[in-house]
Amino acid sequence: LVNGRLDNRVEWCDRGFQYGDGVFTTLPIRSGRPILLGRHVARLERDCGRLGIPFDYSDEVVAEALELCRHQPNGILKIQVTRGPGGRGYRPPEAPRPTRVLSTHNCPDYDPGLWLSGVAVRMCVNRLGCNTALAGIKHMNRLEQILARAEWGADTVHEGLMLDQNGLLIEGTMSNVFLVRGGRLMTPRLDRCGVAGIMRSLIMETARQEGIAIEERAISAAELPTAEEIFLTNSTIGIWPVSRLESACLPVGPLTARLLDLLDARLEEGR
Amino acid sequence: LVNGRLDNRVEWCDRGFQYGDGVFTTLPIRSGRPILLGRHVARLERDCGRLGIPFDYSDEVVAEALELCRHQPNGILKIQVTRGPGGRGYRPPEAPRPTRVLSTHNCPDYDPGLWLSGVAVRMCVNRLGCNTALAGIKHMNRLEQILARAEWGADTVHEGLMLDQNGLLIEGTMSNVFLVRGGRLMTPRLDRCGVAGIMRSLIMETARQEGIAIEERAISAAELPTAEEIFLTNSTIGIWPVSRLESACLPVGPLTARLLDLLDARLEEGR
Repeated sequence: LVNGRLDNRVEWCDRGFQYGDGVFTTLPIRSGRPILLGRHVARLERDCGRLGIPFDYSDEVVAEALELCRHQPNGILKIQVTRGPGGRGYRPPEAPRPTRVLSTHNCPDYDPGLWLSGVAVRMCVNRLGCNTALAGIKHMNRLEQILARAEWGADTVHEGLMLDQNGLLIEGTMSNVFLVRGGRLMTPRLDRCGVAGIMRSLIMETARQEGIAIEERAISAAELPTAEEIFLTNSTIGIWPVSRLESACLPVGPLTARLLDLLDARLEEGR
Repeated sequence: LVNGRLDNRVEWCDRGFQYGDGVFTTLPIRSGRPILLGRHVARLERDCGRLGIPFDYSDEVVAEALELCRHQPNGILKIQVTRGPGGRGYRPPEAPRPTRVLSTHNCPDYDPGLWLSGVAVRMCVNRLGCNTALAGIKHMNRLEQILARAEWGADTVHEGLMLDQNGLLIEGTMSNVFLVRGGRLMTPRLDRCGVAGIMRSLIMETARQEGIAIEERAISAAELPTAEEIFLTNSTIGIWPVSRLESACLPVGPLTARLLDLLDARLEEGR
């Protein structure tokens, strides 16, 4: 759906195609329901606001999302919002007409065992650039993630972790990362780069409600080997325990297992 | 022209629209001739190579460019190459089918006096993130430039200079920058961020041929006030002398004037 109409093409002069000038979000559809749609739409609004894209089509997006989910009751919903058509040059149009694109996709065919036994993760060579103005936003400038994801082809590695230019741990190419040590949760602060995922904030919220200590802070790559448990989060995946990081093996630990249960219960209730 | 066919739309699933996964270049058309087309096509090839986009349509691009220039004998030619259609997810397709888009545009209506009396330049608040893997490439991830260009609206300011995260001077939002001091030219090294412009390399080449000392190095913002002359370069503009930087006035100095003449002669000869 392009601006509410069934279409599979966009204008060539759309600033999304010219400059990656837009934002997006991806969420699962279960039994015809787009999971946590409200949070995803709120994030689109927030991200558009930070880029100065005047987006006030949230009601349309929700209606179109529900309509699409009727036709694909299980799968993935992707929503993109760009600054819309524009002339040549970086200067944003004075009165932008944002473009919204909603699409549904089949679920990737991951082995269901990964959620129980954990995934294998590598350290990426490609690093993330720092820019406070873009940090946290799920924008459409994704060459850093593409170069990192192109580093490996083997299906035996499921995700790669990325550092920033200073060697701080930030996130996976398509996920956020949490570490457990001494019963405490920690996750990288994302004030200089990275994407602040919806699942990340849901896990942080859940931890706080359950009285689990959670710290959002600068984490150096050197701290990774000291973690007792590591897990990844992503809206379409939920929680993936990490059972291997490069050559090191990790257990699927008790706190990860508890959060998996809490998340299941929470999504069941539709919160 | 989209892949050689007259069209003004692209597939929504094109990775250019999904992730800004592509490169571009922009050049002037004078009397039906695309100026320095060979250099621009070579740069597209080089940039595609660095991103792992298998692009071997240079002959088609040249033929299509010449065809378009017949219909717009004076103006701007823009060429984009993306990784082409793809599925959801950052991982590049195993056998990408790159998309090429060529378009012509009217020249921006800049006051011709700017080339003689110089332009007014501001310092941008937005900074450039550093990433050696992307540095120098004219790729389609341009949110940093967009945010910087959105900092001012007034037509009395013609360009903004950008620093990197460490306070080093890098470039303008749409141009490269040169400083003159003691008869010597200098321009920022672009190994950590920035776009290595075709006009920048032509000026460096010309300076070397003319025996003008030229240094490519790290330049801190603090060096700007010590510059005797400053000028900007861009393929569609050529050389713009800077006559005002924030509140400071600068002369259009002798070395800038000499390079303007040398460039005119050189482009006249079509080299």
